[in-house]
Amino acid sequence: MSARYRAAAAALFVLALPFGVAAQTTDLIVAKKTFEMPSYTTVGGQTIKNVKIGWEAAGTLNADKSNAVLITHFFSGTGHAFGKYAASDAVPGYWDAIIGPGKAIDTNKYYVLSSDTLVNLNAKAGNVVTTGPASIDPDTGKPYGMSFPVVSIKDFVNVQKALIESLGIKKLAAVVGASMGALQAYEWAASHPDMVERIIAVIGTPGADPYLIGWLDLWAEPIRLDPKWSNGDYYDKEPPLAGLTAALKIVTLHANHWEWAVKTQGGAAEEGRDPSKALDNKFKIEAALATAAAARAKTADANHFLYLVKANQLASADPGKIKAPALVLYSPTDLIFPAPLVEEAAKKIAGAETGTIVGPNGHLNGVFAITQAADRISAFLAR
Amino acid sequence: MSARYRAAAAALFVLALPFGVAAQTTDLIVAKKTFEMPSYTTVGGQTIKNVKIGWEAAGTLNADKSNAVLITHFFSGTGHAFGKYAASDAVPGYWDAIIGPGKAIDTNKYYVLSSDTLVNLNAKAGNVVTTGPASIDPDTGKPYGMSFPVVSIKDFVNVQKALIESLGIKKLAAVVGASMGALQAYEWAASHPDMVERIIAVIGTPGADPYLIGWLDLWAEPIRLDPKWSNGDYYDKEPPLAGLTAALKIVTLHANHWEWAVKTQGGAAEEGRDPSKALDNKFKIEAALATAAAARAKTADANHFLYLVKANQLASADPGKIKAPALVLYSPTDLIFPAPLVEEAAKKIAGAETGTIVGPNGHLNGVFAITQAADRISAFLAR
Repeated sequence: MSARYRAAAAALFVLALPFGVAAQTTDLIVAKKTFEMPSYTTVGGQTIKNVKIGWEAAGTLNADKSNAVLITHFFSGTGHAFGKYAASDAVPGYWDAIIGPGKAIDTNKYYVLSSDTLVNLNAKAGNVVTTGPASIDPDTGKPYGMSFPVVSIKDFVNVQKALIESLGIKKLAAVVGASMGALQAYEWAASHPDMVERIIAVIGTPGADPYLIGWLDLWAEPIRLDPKWSNGDYYDKEPPLAGLTAALKIVTLHANHWEWAVKTQGGAAEEGRDPSKALDNKFKIEAALATAAAARAKTADANHFLYLVKANQLASADPGKIKAPALVLYSPTDLIFPAPLVEEAAKKIAGAETGTIVGPNGHLNGVFAITQAADRISAFLAR
Repeated sequence: MSARYRAAAAALFVLALPFGVAAQTTDLIVAKKTFEMPSYTTVGGQTIKNVKIGWEAAGTLNADKSNAVLITHFFSGTGHAFGKYAASDAVPGYWDAIIGPGKAIDTNKYYVLSSDTLVNLNAKAGNVVTTGPASIDPDTGKPYGMSFPVVSIKDFVNVQKALIESLGIKKLAAVVGASMGALQAYEWAASHPDMVERIIAVIGTPGADPYLIGWLDLWAEPIRLDPKWSNGDYYDKEPPLAGLTAALKIVTLHANHWEWAVKTQGGAAEEGRDPSKALDNKFKIEAALATAAAARAKTADANHFLYLVKANQLASADPGKIKAPALVLYSPTDLIFPAPLVEEAAKKIAGAETGTIVGPNGHLNGVFAITQAADRISAFLAR
């Protein structure tokens, strides 16, 4: 894990620390592997040569290869869902609390794997392998930039399917993911019903509603406003770090909740710099967002952010096509995937069951407070 | 009313039209007047010379000047709360549904006045009079830009107080406002308890909570990212219209709700330009926000936006100091001033009573659906 990415991950966790999410200890050590496809044809009919995505795994695939669980990651996440790359890592994967030996998703029982998506946001992080606009186009020898084809959640799933098949796995015991990871879990079940035994969709709906589509566009807007973005052609220049940082601020705030802010983010950023005295004197929450976003921006790519936005906007798995048992877990205070829309979608899935994850962090309860659902998850998997 | 401002106002209303807010007819004709102060000293101790704000009124001030009602406006609003400037105006003031002869705030009984605030957003609108960074500094003969002092909601109220006193009014029968207008109503009652008989605070809390403080900063961020902003020094050049438009998109979306979007904003922006086919092919909601924001940006000033953000961030009326009877109306689905925070604040105001305004427009229910509260408002005023 690169120092930069470690800093970014730590910054994300800092936002939750006042509520007792302490650094986890873990014995699980994982390593990033790379899956390659000579070419992949997108849902939109475009061909991408030399596709690579990273993946990590723990546990042992059984003889009939029936115990594989796929973890799909959220918008700003990576395939690093559990374990550490080295015992000295500051923080483990984001869902380490529920994945590992003896945990809810028990690596003594399951072969658990998790891949980086196409157009992964953290293209510059040491342990992320992805293909997207920052990748070299073999036809030109230069980064794709905005010539990279549009990809969707369905494409993420199709590339994961190729990875799974390369391992000889015919059917996944479960697909489990939070947020954009939930979009992928629903899409897996809707598109490949014979390959998915069950799904656990956390803090997400099967598709993006128009309000979220609008928000995703506004998340991306600061990147387009940054002159250094220059229509995506910045790979031999300075990247649009200011725009990317602003975009990450919006994601970070939107994914959290006023309850968190009211409890922990009141007051001025610096003593002696009263926000009422000068336009530039900041409030604590402004400084906190700036610090967290700047750390995350260092390992992220701005064009990848734009392509991820589009992929999420295009998410539209048909809940009526989902036949696998589904456990749908949501945060009642989620401001990105509102609870009523999650509940409504769950009703359209035959045999779906729902549960809640509560806490002060809105959408992020699904990441920070996932242990609340640990028993529910292990029971659902055992059925 | 300038053609530009009319277009901007119409654009705002278009967002509500599918829910039956039709253009109102009205017989009330109002005119903008200007109130001037040779100098005003801000709460922060800075002096601004030659302060001007616009105001409008309807009804007749009675002999003992006890029937005045002050309407305070929202973030992107103006003093044009009721009536039309000319019978041919496309739309009347934003709260015309409840203000006028025989309406909830009855101009046959009350002398109703409404002023433009300091640093009003719509500095370029024909019928707005305001003092802010776009105004000429008498000491230099040039626009203030970022040398304009920080002002707060308390300053807005203090200048209104001077206006009221210039009319010989010692006590207001009521202060009534929505959103930033509610911040002003609370501040009036907390700061000048002897001058306010009652307040009606709609879709707002007495102060900005840290989450809103964070959001306000992110509303403003696109302006600072626009190179044309050049640290606020753009008055002899092209203004930062792209950044300002992006900022207004965020305000517009944040003030609305997924219920509105789900019902009316699904699908692609243009037939034949499938959003899945190219990164630039837009969804309907993206185009709707762009159109509405571009119309509003034409009459707005980017620096005024930044100063308004600061004024709102600094809002912090003490509910415990409010002695006047208060009617607190809120939208249960408000994403800017969340219902639980409004309810919590109302409990700290002795004798406050609460009510809800429902609809698909989130925060904007307090503007678009205010007629729901008409009877409640007239009864509260009559007590």
